[in-house]
Amino acid sequence: VPKRVDHQERRSRIADAVCRLLARDGFEAVSLRQVATEAGVSMGQVQHYFMTKDELLAYTFDSLSVRVEQRLQTSLSGSSDQPPPTRDLLRALLRAMVPLDPVTRAEAPLWVAYAARAIVRPELAERLRTDDFATMVAGLLRQAQNDGRAANGFDPDLEAATLLALADGLMIRTAIEPHRTSQAAAVIDYHLDRLFPK
Amino acid sequence: VPKRVDHQERRSRIADAVCRLLARDGFEAVSLRQVATEAGVSMGQVQHYFMTKDELLAYTFDSLSVRVEQRLQTSLSGSSDQPPPTRDLLRALLRAMVPLDPVTRAEAPLWVAYAARAIVRPELAERLRTDDFATMVAGLLRQAQNDGRAANGFDPDLEAATLLALADGLMIRTAIEPHRTSQAAAVIDYHLDRLFPK
Repeated sequence: VPKRVDHQERRSRIADAVCRLLARDGFEAVSLRQVATEAGVSMGQVQHYFMTKDELLAYTFDSLSVRVEQRLQTSLSGSSDQPPPTRDLLRALLRAMVPLDPVTRAEAPLWVAYAARAIVRPELAERLRTDDFATMVAGLLRQAQNDGRAANGFDPDLEAATLLALADGLMIRTAIEPHRTSQAAAVIDYHLDRLFPK
Repeated sequence: VPKRVDHQERRSRIADAVCRLLARDGFEAVSLRQVATEAGVSMGQVQHYFMTKDELLAYTFDSLSVRVEQRLQTSLSGSSDQPPPTRDLLRALLRAMVPLDPVTRAEAPLWVAYAARAIVRPELAERLRTDDFATMVAGLLRQAQNDGRAANGFDPDLEAATLLALADGLMIRTAIEPHRTSQAAAVIDYHLDRLFPK
């Protein structure tokens, strides 16, 4: 009886190896050979799933996105059946994108390496498009304003663009200057307090 | 008579080649051999100045920093002998960091590739430290507040951290999504208007 291979398990083991290599030595270090060694599989097995480094990077990006989304849902699923207040939702979103703890800090090199690659490889940029996301956040802000739950007078579209740019910027800043982690968290709360005064 | 070599000129020709290669194919593409070909010099000449890719990247980063600073000074040196108003100074600074035109857009891949590398190579991170810069910006904001030239009630330190994170975030966002360039410019003005109401 041929041994059944758990492809899903093997692929995520390879993605974890890419993450670790990238955090240690950058995208440079991600050769198929090194990934194979790090993941404890053969070169042929890595090549079976991934033809190029970019495919490997894209898959690792997708795995990480799923994980971030799962964490986000866990952090938002309190005991209540109600949807979370807009401020809590935005706070959880922003905090999921900025490396405020060791887990997200270990992931930051992958995000930034992916962004660097997406700038020169437009086919990878698709995954980083924020048009829909920005529209969604702007909609939430506008709704909260209409319901009197948010401050009057701010521009929902520009504030949504601000929050997304802040998330990217604070992610990079915090990854490069870990001693400013607590300030990054304070910046997030400061702007949410401005939009949602108590 | 031996031919005199203009080392400065040759080094900056090499840095320009790195910039072009990086914008086209990413940091991956930057091998000493390709740089030599792109710059029209020999491999030996590249190696004479730069032992490693990281040295090459750091030098290119420094050349670009000098160029950005020169552009900034040009944009600020109006006909007046007075120092520019704080709002104009901050606006020029932010606009110099975000790829709003073809020149800065061509430079963005270098900045992001450098940031990605600095996250895994702390010896390169020094150049991206913003502690002094953030303190300077916070000082300018505090002074403007004290002089009644800026809005009351904002936190100068958190607003300075915001502006710097916004610059990084808008830079990445604009490089990945060029169609959002004009929104990035609007975000900058929107926050300056908030801090410096007319």
